[in-house]
Amino acid sequence: MKAVIVYSGGLDSTTLLYEFRDSIQLAVSFDYGSKHNAREIEMAREHCSKLGIEHLEIPLSFIRQYFRSGLLIGGGDIPEGNYSGDNMISTVVPFRNAITLSIAVGLAESRELDSVLIANHSGDHEIYPDCRPGFIDAMDKAASEGTYKGVRIVPPYCNITKREIALRGHAIGIDFSRTWSCYKGGEKHCGVCATCRERKEALQGFDNTAYEIS
Amino acid sequence: MKAVIVYSGGLDSTTLLYEFRDSIQLAVSFDYGSKHNAREIEMAREHCSKLGIEHLEIPLSFIRQYFRSGLLIGGGDIPEGNYSGDNMISTVVPFRNAITLSIAVGLAESRELDSVLIANHSGDHEIYPDCRPGFIDAMDKAASEGTYKGVRIVPPYCNITKREIALRGHAIGIDFSRTWSCYKGGEKHCGVCATCRERKEALQGFDNTAYEIS
Repeated sequence: MKAVIVYSGGLDSTTLLYEFRDSIQLAVSFDYGSKHNAREIEMAREHCSKLGIEHLEIPLSFIRQYFRSGLLIGGGDIPEGNYSGDNMISTVVPFRNAITLSIAVGLAESRELDSVLIANHSGDHEIYPDCRPGFIDAMDKAASEGTYKGVRIVPPYCNITKREIALRGHAIGIDFSRTWSCYKGGEKHCGVCATCRERKEALQGFDNTAYEIS
Repeated sequence: MKAVIVYSGGLDSTTLLYEFRDSIQLAVSFDYGSKHNAREIEMAREHCSKLGIEHLEIPLSFIRQYFRSGLLIGGGDIPEGNYSGDNMISTVVPFRNAITLSIAVGLAESRELDSVLIANHSGDHEIYPDCRPGFIDAMDKAASEGTYKGVRIVPPYCNITKREIALRGHAIGIDFSRTWSCYKGGEKHCGVCATCRERKEALQGFDNTAYEIS
């Protein structure tokens, strides 16, 4: 496999970056105007530099300008509490993963690479339709049909939990304090938004204080 | 149907714009750095203004910056002669339609619209993998699975020829002199690139001199 990775700088995609580092030729991060984009991309930059992986940062300013989502700057407050349809639906950025995957597939085809890696996991499925297996399968088919090379979408964590991802990353020795999750994008993780709560659960019991998030 | 149209300003998508004008709530054009983008978008702007349809122009500068294609500024010369795999393959912009369709689907979902219209036709299939029915079907499935609203991709010209599109547009009374095709993007249509030849064939026999292309 010669792959492009869609890489945010969060816990999941950082684990994916390390796990597949030998197959990854290019990492691409997208700045789509979310409140936490700058914090994420700072982490992404650091890990790519450490691993010697080429890293592109692509601004998608039209998303902040024209899309409707509470995740975006100017799009309202980030809800607090646990993940559930009621409070987290406002953080969906419509069809975001299709946009970022399509760009990554175009980059793969331009560089004669054969795959695009994405770190969606089973905990994403309830709220985010563009993380579900049915969506990923359809995008894989679109990529395979819509390119000369037959680029494939590869989602290794599609059917495992964030906790299982964290265990894999821990085993590899990743310093999770150098990953970003919090949707509020402050100086430290807020600890109370749904993404922080999910992160805490995933990292539970790890005795390294570097994993603390606020 | 309440639709977003992916609208270049060419002969095909201008016909689509007029044919479905009553269902179209938003037209979106993309500047991805092709040699003829500015000429196309000028036409798109004119027709949207005439029909009173909201028109967004979205720059995708990363395509010119990072993608490999002869269609792009700085990407080499546009080949001359008729359409064939050998000479036209250099004008493919990898996975372009997936990128533009995905953005249009995100806009549709943001505005509670249900469909995205695209003017790919049967003559595109040989050279452009991201115009073929298999690709369009997969993207339709991805859009339907990856949005809350279940946005659909609607390609009304997928199985008809450019000639048939021109006949439909002619019947509607469209002034095709105010559409742009030539990949070279000069002041006038060059008349010798494959796109100009295809355009001439489609408009053959129309006696209005406004249809002349060079």
